[in-house]
Amino acid sequence: MYHFLNDYSESAHPDIIAALHDSHKQQHKGYGFDEFSEKVRNSIKQKIGNPDIAVHFGITGTQANLVCIDAMLASIDGIIACDTGHIAVNEAGAIEATGHKVIIAPSTNGKLTIDALEKVRLRHSFAPHVVRSRAVYISNTTELGTVYNYDELKAISDYCREHDMYLFMDGARLGAAIASSHDDPNQRNLTLADFAELTDIFWFGGTKMGAMFGEILIIPNQKIAKDFNIYLKQHGGLLAKGYLMALQFDVLLKNDKYLELCRHANTMARQISQSLVDAGHKLFVATESNQVFAVLPQTLIQFLKTKFEFYEWEVLNDEFSIVRLVTSWATDPKQVTRFVEMVKEQAKI
Amino acid sequence: MYHFLNDYSESAHPDIIAALHDSHKQQHKGYGFDEFSEKVRNSIKQKIGNPDIAVHFGITGTQANLVCIDAMLASIDGIIACDTGHIAVNEAGAIEATGHKVIIAPSTNGKLTIDALEKVRLRHSFAPHVVRSRAVYISNTTELGTVYNYDELKAISDYCREHDMYLFMDGARLGAAIASSHDDPNQRNLTLADFAELTDIFWFGGTKMGAMFGEILIIPNQKIAKDFNIYLKQHGGLLAKGYLMALQFDVLLKNDKYLELCRHANTMARQISQSLVDAGHKLFVATESNQVFAVLPQTLIQFLKTKFEFYEWEVLNDEFSIVRLVTSWATDPKQVTRFVEMVKEQAKI
Amino acid sequence: MYHFLNDYSESAHPDIIAALHDSHKQQHKGYGFDEFSEKVRNSIKQKIGNPDIAVHFGITGTQANLVCIDAMLASIDGIIACDTGHIAVNEAGAIEATGHKVIIAPSTNGKLTIDALEKVRLRHSFAPHVVRSRAVYISNTTELGTVYNYDELKAISDYCREHDMYLFMDGARLGAAIASSHDDPNQRNLTLADFAELTDIFWFGGTKMGAMFGEILIIPNQKIAKDFNIYLKQHGGLLAKGYLMALQFDVLLKNDKYLELCRHANTMARQISQSLVDAGHKLFVATESNQVFAVLPQTLIQFLKTKFEFYEWEVLNDEFSIVRLVTSWATDPKQVTRFVEMVKEQAKI
Amino acid sequence: MYHFLNDYSESAHPDIIAALHDSHKQQHKGYGFDEFSEKVRNSIKQKIGNPDIAVHFGITGTQANLVCIDAMLASIDGIIACDTGHIAVNEAGAIEATGHKVIIAPSTNGKLTIDALEKVRLRHSFAPHVVRSRAVYISNTTELGTVYNYDELKAISDYCREHDMYLFMDGARLGAAIASSHDDPNQRNLTLADFAELTDIFWFGGTKMGAMFGEILIIPNQKIAKDFNIYLKQHGGLLAKGYLMALQFDVLLKNDKYLELCRHANTMARQISQSLVDAGHKLFVATESNQVFAVLPQTLIQFLKTKFEFYEWEVLNDEFSIVRLVTSWATDPKQVTRFVEMVKEQAKI
Repeated sequence: MYHFLNDYSESAHPDIIAALHDSHKQQHKGYGFDEFSEKVRNSIKQKIGNPDIAVHFGITGTQANLVCIDAMLASIDGIIACDTGHIAVNEAGAIEATGHKVIIAPSTNGKLTIDALEKVRLRHSFAPHVVRSRAVYISNTTELGTVYNYDELKAISDYCREHDMYLFMDGARLGAAIASSHDDPNQRNLTLADFAELTDIFWFGGTKMGAMFGEILIIPNQKIAKDFNIYLKQHGGLLAKGYLMALQFDVLLKNDKYLELCRHANTMARQISQSLVDAGHKLFVATESNQVFAVLPQTLIQFLKTKFEFYEWEVLNDEFSIVRLVTSWATDPKQVTRFVEMVKEQAKI
Repeated sequence: MYHFLNDYSESAHPDIIAALHDSHKQQHKGYGFDEFSEKVRNSIKQKIGNPDIAVHFGITGTQANLVCIDAMLASIDGIIACDTGHIAVNEAGAIEATGHKVIIAPSTNGKLTIDALEKVRLRHSFAPHVVRSRAVYISNTTELGTVYNYDELKAISDYCREHDMYLFMDGARLGAAIASSHDDPNQRNLTLADFAELTDIFWFGGTKMGAMFGEILIIPNQKIAKDFNIYLKQHGGLLAKGYLMALQFDVLLKNDKYLELCRHANTMARQISQSLVDAGHKLFVATESNQVFAVLPQTLIQFLKTKFEFYEWEVLNDEFSIVRLVTSWATDPKQVTRFVEMVKEQAKI
Repeated sequence: MYHFLNDYSESAHPDIIAALHDSHKQQHKGYGFDEFSEKVRNSIKQKIGNPDIAVHFGITGTQANLVCIDAMLASIDGIIACDTGHIAVNEAGAIEATGHKVIIAPSTNGKLTIDALEKVRLRHSFAPHVVRSRAVYISNTTELGTVYNYDELKAISDYCREHDMYLFMDGARLGAAIASSHDDPNQRNLTLADFAELTDIFWFGGTKMGAMFGEILIIPNQKIAKDFNIYLKQHGGLLAKGYLMALQFDVLLKNDKYLELCRHANTMARQISQSLVDAGHKLFVATESNQVFAVLPQTLIQFLKTKFEFYEWEVLNDEFSIVRLVTSWATDPKQVTRFVEMVKEQAKI
Repeated sequence: MYHFLNDYSESAHPDIIAALHDSHKQQHKGYGFDEFSEKVRNSIKQKIGNPDIAVHFGITGTQANLVCIDAMLASIDGIIACDTGHIAVNEAGAIEATGHKVIIAPSTNGKLTIDALEKVRLRHSFAPHVVRSRAVYISNTTELGTVYNYDELKAISDYCREHDMYLFMDGARLGAAIASSHDDPNQRNLTLADFAELTDIFWFGGTKMGAMFGEILIIPNQKIAKDFNIYLKQHGGLLAKGYLMALQFDVLLKNDKYLELCRHANTMARQISQSLVDAGHKLFVATESNQVFAVLPQTLIQFLKTKFEFYEWEVLNDEFSIVRLVTSWATDPKQVTRFVEMVKEQAKI
């Protein structure tokens, strides 16, 4: 059995384990005051071209989201997210537990549209009876694996600035989004500098692109950056051995190693997706990164499940379900080939 | 330069890195539903002799504390801790951020006494004007490196049960406490089963005994155990690659490897402590584990600082300061010998 | 100018002011430990036929809602409400500020249906990634002035018990709901005993039926009742002069004075509503209590606004808007007659 | 039996009840947008001499405290209070429930000293491991009835500004403090303008000087003032019939009626206090306002308790206790005379 359940099933890229081994006898300063952390912070600042930008490290995605949002909002503020956004349902009330309302807007292909944004913002404008709509949350790639391109991001960013709202981007799979833009000849290549220009705060996730854990939190907006470290500490997000996260990103950033790993994941997903389309199946949304959402008949699902594990996302009816197939930096191309063969085989029947 | 600043300056014991390397191509289930986690949970249950006990994993110490306390308390409940307790000052308001008051009692050698406990409990008994004193927090070893022995724990446990309060033990350095009891012929050896008998919830920290990160959270009280996983998730404490923590504890628990590592740390501290006493200096508290608190003259401090880094804990006056020296599983015995030599050398002058 | 903006524009029924005057030289115990409070608590217990039921007093509606919900839920719990529910949008994030997610379901005529309930409950069933759906919020009358009858309440109550969820009823206008059932020959008369049978906690609002302020909080479920007073105190809801609320309810409960006052309000609304229907206008929802929601042409709206103030609830298009007209215990019948005349007059044109 | 238990045992001054009666048929705008509220806001602005100052209304003292503190602080901020401060113990964790740590300093005669302030501030200066000490809480009069004079307030205010901390003053008994300064020939008369000059936010309590309930919240600091109304709403502190609070303050502010009432209360306390001193008893603290704290023998306590109720504040030993005697605007001079006679009578024995 091989599985396409998620992109966090393998522990870490061997280069990271090697780097860990090489440094394990060194004494490091704690809590991010070490030299590895300093090096990675500088590397990010250089890539963005702004030496004043604040750079921190977070441990898990839920934590990165709750800390960033708590640092951004006053008690009376809410944050708008679309209904497929990770903070809308799947974080066990983590945002509300910090006292903030998540204001939910309908989504289109996993994305927040300006139109949906405008509607919920207007609905929440009768002060003092409503929370202030003070921030907007998006994730890139989205929960459905779709990618916001530069123009879409620019439109949301402009809207937020016009209405005095912060824009926050969850980057659990930001590497996959960047890689996607690099492989799409119709899109401008997305860069960290773009996100720094357009958002007030965003994060760049390591877990899903080859690290054991860890995310880089990048804060272009100086108002949010102030004393951010205390927000991390207060929510249990300051790792004693903080150098561990920096050490991993040092490997991933060197020669844009992360981009190579993410392109691999996206390529694997594209092969799976293409095989399904070729066999006459419909996708639920276009495959733009390392997640495939397809509408498959139960017969095919059951056949594939004899060799592969993956999620049935939603049962549509007795005959069809939406399935989710996720690839990663570690996905074995031979297994993808085996999967593609099975799809073809079933198509012949 | 070598430092005795803390016990988290080296990343991980080489056995752990080896285990990580060995398993890095395997696909694991996410969020603690993997086989490593299952194995460690069973191992803990076996050591305690209770198959029904709940066992979870936390990532950082502050997070372990805030999640355990939040899971234990209702909104109207406070938790009593002594003034040197980690949650009293040094967690950036993490407990209060979950809505709970930390009720502070004076400490004796870093410990909470029954007498101090009784006084603050009585002070908080005028309902509905005060929070309910619903739980008691202790850490073992304490922040001053002292160790609660079985009788002291039993007395606090009995007091808590008599007054319908939960007992929660922070085990950031629980390995050091267990090791200390093993090396003290006057004390009964402390075991995980003892803590399970006497507390309602406690944790057993990996970070300070050779793991990269991770703590095992053990919950004897079934009322607190219910849906504990959601508390972890809500506070960002559920690691996608949860198997990483289990994998590390698997190494540390095998043949009580952790005990060997902690005994080493304690031995190193004892050597440092003894050298100071032999040279005529006073300890601030007795050295019972891997932390030495000593009252040293500035002349000695400055001399030692030419070769070693450590914290000046508190400036007492122009001449004397309390210093803290911390050893770990990774402390190099040669460096300790060098330190001891310097103490002797200065004593001769 | 006369207004139908709301049901809290007049301070208090004269009988209440008289009772206040009569007792103002007496010394009362503070914080609800006085004789008036005891008398009202007993009166409620008697009406319900349960001497063990817990009875408290709250000051404002938002506060009653947030205190009841906080007392009912653990940190990891959310509460389901329909999208028109007061806690869904119009309480400035009060529930989220206590750390709890409000899970929003679509509404039908201002009501929560079993079908909508089932859907959102299922959507929130993937522990540990989601909050527990631990309670259901309804208001009676609803925000649209519609009334849950006994059968509807019973169905929701049964559903909640089947799925281990608490049922909480916001009774800001519960008097109006009871009065409505008394005036509807097709419905069984609703009583406090019914609500005590079907819900776990509910409140009975004074503000909108002639009191200056104050709501009675009634808690049939003993688990929620424990130490409820501390929840009130913690959220600033324990009035030093608590006897003030009891004194007012003493007047309103005597000979069911409140019912007489609420029937008056409902009658006034029915006259307004009927006049609009008679003139050929459409209602947005049926008028079942003291709120009228009607779809009116701008011409009529502008004409009426020369003499009356009321809210344009929603602009539908250039020609039509939904308006809200609210009556109260203090509504002057002559003003209603004047309003009805204007509607007739405009109809003739 | 007559009691000196507190200053909130009588409902309201008859002038207030009369004003309530006179206006009860008028229709008012809700939520503080009415003409009474506007009038009182203007009156306060005029007294202070600043038309830009923000003026709001709160309902209870605990609520005023929690709303002001929540509006002032970010999530990572704590507030310093002395150990006798009302928020330190007696508000059921209300401040912590909004997520903020109350940092406790030792008190001197119920007051916070600069020395105590400096010590706790330094103790909380190791970022990111501690909360930011962002505000200071004092109450005037203090919980022990002592009064901060202008110079003491100025010193604390200067200290706060020097260290970038807000100063917040709880004015549950601010009328009594103002009255005290007027009757003390050695002190400069305190005014609302003084408090506006020296603090960032303070409140002026109505409940304990003749109102049924209600406090005026005054915010000199524009940063805290922004959208303050939403904080009130979020914590259930926006009264639908907000005009009720304004109407009461309109009576109390007219010709400084409140000052006359508070002077009466203070005079009554002074007579009680003087009689105890004359009879040879010791005060626990000097009687500066409407609260008397005295160290009395059990024999006298038991004798007085045959006719009067009051609190035994603290049992010192078998023979002596500290008692608290509180007077108010409504205290009957004849009862005070009767009390004084009993003290004299017992002294003769």
